[in-house]
Order: sequence, then structure tokens, then C-alpha cells
Amino acid sequence: MTEEKRPLLITTGEPAGIGMDVVLRLATESKLQDFARPIWVTADAKAMQTRAEELVAASVLKSIPSWHTINTDINADNVDVNLVDQISQQDIDADSAFILLDIPCAAPVVCGQINIANSAMVAQQLDIAHKLAINNTVAAIVTGPLQKSALIDAGIKLLDGTMFSGHTEFFMQQSGCEKVVMMLANQAMKVALVTTHLPLKDIPAAITAENVRQTVQIVIDDMREKFGLAQPRILVCGLNPHAGEGGHLGSEEIEIINPVLQEFIDAGVNISEAMPADTLFTTRHLANCDAVIAMYHDQGLPVLKSHGFGDTVNLTLGLPYIRTSVDHGTALDLAGSGGASATSLYQALNMANEMADKSLIDVPAV
Amino acid sequence: MTEEKRPLLITTGEPAGIGMDVVLRLATESKLQDFARPIWVTADAKAMQTRAEELVAASVLKSIPSWHTINTDINADNVDVNLVDQISQQDIDADSAFILLDIPCAAPVVCGQINIANSAMVAQQLDIAHKLAINNTVAAIVTGPLQKSALIDAGIKLLDGTMFSGHTEFFMQQSGCEKVVMMLANQAMKVALVTTHLPLKDIPAAITAENVRQTVQIVIDDMREKFGLAQPRILVCGLNPHAGEGGHLGSEEIEIINPVLQEFIDAGVNISEAMPADTLFTTRHLANCDAVIAMYHDQGLPVLKSHGFGDTVNLTLGLPYIRTSVDHGTALDLAGSGGASATSLYQALNMANEMADKSLIDVPAV
Repeated sequence: MTEEKRPLLITTGEPAGIGMDVVLRLATESKLQDFARPIWVTADAKAMQTRAEELVAASVLKSIPSWHTINTDINADNVDVNLVDQISQQDIDADSAFILLDIPCAAPVVCGQINIANSAMVAQQLDIAHKLAINNTVAAIVTGPLQKSALIDAGIKLLDGTMFSGHTEFFMQQSGCEKVVMMLANQAMKVALVTTHLPLKDIPAAITAENVRQTVQIVIDDMREKFGLAQPRILVCGLNPHAGEGGHLGSEEIEIINPVLQEFIDAGVNISEAMPADTLFTTRHLANCDAVIAMYHDQGLPVLKSHGFGDTVNLTLGLPYIRTSVDHGTALDLAGSGGASATSLYQALNMANEMADKSLIDVPAV
Repeated sequence: MTEEKRPLLITTGEPAGIGMDVVLRLATESKLQDFARPIWVTADAKAMQTRAEELVAASVLKSIPSWHTINTDINADNVDVNLVDQISQQDIDADSAFILLDIPCAAPVVCGQINIANSAMVAQQLDIAHKLAINNTVAAIVTGPLQKSALIDAGIKLLDGTMFSGHTEFFMQQSGCEKVVMMLANQAMKVALVTTHLPLKDIPAAITAENVRQTVQIVIDDMREKFGLAQPRILVCGLNPHAGEGGHLGSEEIEIINPVLQEFIDAGVNISEAMPADTLFTTRHLANCDAVIAMYHDQGLPVLKSHGFGDTVNLTLGLPYIRTSVDHGTALDLAGSGGASATSLYQALNMANEMADKSLIDVPAV
């Protein structure tokens, strides 16, 4: 079975941060086996070895876990085919917790110390992750944390020539996506956002019919394709308190949101009209709902995270592949110390794995 | 003990709604005894008798509970003293579940049918409740639901001559309060709001230093006086996602909210600076917090209600007395049918009772 399932790919991200630490932690605890899929990890092989030794010295790891290293020619046109060929031709020890796709750093890695000489290597991880995912070589990407400022300081650009601004924008541009949707998920609920990181005063202007329509469509499409739900049940928050209370507390529900939702209802989609957020997030409603769409960050995420902060996984909907993410940063001060929790990475892998199992995305086996 | 504690006063509100039903339900289930205080109830005595008979006929109540009726001269100057005199002179059966302060309706009460001839009686309930509370005759007011439109249609005015607009505004004007704070509470948390029922677009303009300062002061004062907490621990949400992220996602935290909070911190109050709402509402923070202040409705209430919808109680802070409220409306279609749940009234009484027990408000015993 394992051999037939496509791998999950972890990008460890910033080498001076805790990205490698949390992979090593799961590897040592044999938790990477839980997913019955090969685990591929992008990192600098030497830095990974050093980090493992540091964690053993700090008594965090009992022993250095076993992994198998593959040289990665990031610049090869068909890097994904080359990798698959390489991996398939090798006799990989069953004890290997993961396959390390070696992407060398330009400068030595020092825990907790950002070195912009290594920013290109971070971007290369994202590049190879995209190539392996877009061609369905891997089943999903699980991204570790990077330090955005380090890539900006190094002058790393996106495909359109603008400055690097994050994982999501990178994958969007590589995939030719115009719009993606941020979803957070844990055992209690899944919440997608129409707007994400905007000052509160800028939210109403961003609630356009087009934005609501695109968000709903992406959520529907991805609940079908990536979660395998033929007829997803979706509840939508209003923008205003009490969903505007018939226009007394704001008109966006009547003028913008409900007309768009009605289009979907008319098309047979199982979706609500705009609902008061303070009644939507109760057991009665959530029990019959696959995903909630909130209009903005603080309407949806406080309630979601209050029901499972450590278990929360960040998903990007709308990309042509599955991408989940840890919900923590580089935690530079914890790198190499063993203080970093691997719970978030585990949850992000678990979600990616579940989605890959249910996904309808048509794929060749490795 | 019971004799020494001051009563809790329930206003049943709209007679055509479920206000009397839920009182009768708790009385029949002997739950009004749980608070070890006399329970006083404002209602029309005849209508209460009829409602009890209807609920027995509907097999909701096994038998009509026992209560003791007192004639209430709403127009007497010293109505509270008169009532106390009357009650103290009577031999009240220990089996009486409550003392009914009779406020007659002008027209017969029909379940589910609003009659504006009875709107004056609803307002009289609030008037007597205020008088009994402001003089510390009762320990707290617990308000049942009224139909705002019925009072407006009947031309009921507030003290300042403007049209009736709700329980809270009524009690504010009677008490000469300029500002009150809405707090919702359940077993999981207590959340006070800086702004309440505003369209989202109008919220930023309402987040002024004066509004934040007054809200915080009222929460501190009431957590001390009405909850008996000498040094309440208060956490405050920012207005913007991630509490503005150092100004990148909005400037109100830096320009308005944090300077005000710093004044309180400097004065020795145990209060936070503006925190990201999506991390504030997690066990780690809530475990060390007596009250949360949210900037607006949908930032604080979805998360609170998600942790105990049926248990949620509405409190008005800033009044010179304790007032809690059921969190449901008149439910006209359920009146007399037995379909109304009394859980919310029970929770509102329970909260009022707990507050009265802890309250530092100086009071004479009845």
C-alpha cells in the first residue's frame, strides 16, 4: 500500500529556524510513519545532520533518526522526473523515516541567526515543491516556516517581478492562480475567509460581490476536489452583527452577500444565506456543516482557535494542489534547543494526508 | 439565612410572550428555590393564573405551582416601601414558589397576540423594577423579554422624552447613567463589548479613547463591586486582526487603544495591552482572566456563545444595581404551549444570585 501512495512533501523553510527541528522530532518519535505515505523533506543535508546532532546533544532526541538523502538539481528542467527516477533506482532502507531532498545552503547554518546568503535556498525549496506538486509527483505540500524579511532583504522576487511576500503568493503566481482562499481547520470546524489580513476599516470595501462569489466557488470546488465531498454543506456569516438584522445594522447582507449566495442556492448548492456569526458557531449549526465562510479574520478565527489552538492547520484553497502549513513561525530562539513543539507539523501532515486520501485530483502513482 | 437575603426580581415583560411560561416552569420544577432568596415576579395576576392553567392543560405542568400575590400600586411615590410593608405583614406560605407583584393589564391577555393596550403594563414592570433595585429592596433585576415594537407603537417614552428603545436605555435614563456596558457571560468566559449593535463600517469611528476608557472603567468597577473581585484580571482585544501587528494591519491599537490601556496599567490595574483576538480566546489566556473586553459584537460573541449557547447570560454593567437578562425574545408562537425552555431564565437568575452574593454594593436587609 505504502508504495502506491504518493509522498507528502515538507519544506523545512528557514534553515536557522525550527523547521528541521520539528521534522527530526516527528522522525525520532516514529510519527512520520502514521501517514502510510513516503515523506519527502526539502533541506540542506549537512545542516539537517548538524541539527540532529545538536538535538541529541541537548538530550531532546535519543538518537539520530535515519533518513535517505537524494541530491536535488534544482535547476534541472525536469527536476521532478529526475527525482522520481533517482529515488526509484535506489535501494532505500525501510528504516528511513524520510527522504531528504538536498538543497544546499550557500553559507553555514547557525541556529537562530538569519543569513540572507541562504534565502535563495529557501525560495528553491518552494520552487521544487511547486514543481513536484503541480505534476502530481507529491500528493501535497506541507510548508514549514520561513522568515519573510530574509527573502525580501535578499531581493527574492516573485514570478511577476514584485518582491517576495509569502508562501501563498509564491504558489499562486507559480500556478497562475488569481485568487486563493485561506482556510483554517481543526477537529471542531473548518473556516474559510473572504478577507484575511486587512485593517478592520478596510473590510467593508473588500466585501464585493465578485470577492464573495469567487471565495464561495473556491470553497465549493475544493471541498469537492480536495475533501471528496460531493455536496458540501456550507454556512456563511453576515458582515454585520446579527447579519445586519434585516438592514437595521448594515446593508451589505441585502445588497451584496445574499444576492450572491442566492445564485449558488439557485444552482443547487447546499449553502446558507448570511447568518448571524454569534449563532452560526454553535453545535446545532456546526453539526450539519462541512465548512463555514466568515467575512473576516476576527469573525472566524477566534472561535475556531478557541476550540483547538494547537491543532489548527492553515490550508490554501484554490491552488491546483493540496497545501497545508504549520501555524507557527521560525521561532529562531528555539532552533536547536529542542523547545519547539512538533504538534502543528503533525496536524498539518495529518490534514494533508486525509485530504490526499479523499482528493479527487487525478494523479499518476509514483 | 433565606429570610435575610434580599429578593431577586423577575420582570415577565410582554404578557403575550413566554415570560410567564418560563417562570411557571421553574416554579413547578422547584428550581426557584435553588437561589435561597425570595423570588419576586412582576406580572398580571389573572394572566399568570390563566397561563398556569393553560400549561397544565397542555400537560407541560403537572400542577399549578403555588405563589402569593401582592397588590402593587405602581403610582405610589414610595411603592418600594409600601411593598415591603405589605409583604412583611403577611403570613406567606412557605410553599409559595414566588411572590407575584400584581401589575394589572388593561386588556385581556391572549397568548401570542400583542395588544398595545398592555404596553403600559410592560413599562410599569420596568419602572417598579428600577425603584425596587435603586433602593436596594431587591438584590438584582432579571428581565424577561419584551416586544420593543409594541411599546413604540403604544407611544411609550423614555424619561428624556425620546421613544422607548429597550430595557437597557430605560434603566440607564432612570438611573441617570450616561454609559453602560453590555457583557455576556457563561461558564466558559465573560465578554464585555466596547461597541454593540453597529454596522461593521461604523465600528472604527466608535473606537475612541473616551469610549475605550469609559468601558474599561465600568468593567473594572463592576468586576469589583458586583463580582467582588478586588483586583480583576482583564484582557483586551485589539480592533484589527493580530491587534494591528505593530501598525501593519491598522493603527487604532497604537494611536487609541494601547495609550488608554497604559493609563490603567500605570494605575496598577491588572489589564493587558491590545491582544490578537485569535490567540486571546484560548485556554492559556482565559485561565488567568476574569473578563475579556472585545471591541465589537462579532469579535467577542461568536466565541463566547460557541462555548455555551444556552447558558449565556446578558448583563448590563454600569448601572447602580445588578441586572441580568434572558437571552431570548418573546417567542410569541410558543406562549402557552410549553415549548419554551426555561434554561436561559435559570442561568440569568443564577448569575444574578451569584453576583448578589459577592456584591459589595452596600445594602440594607429586607
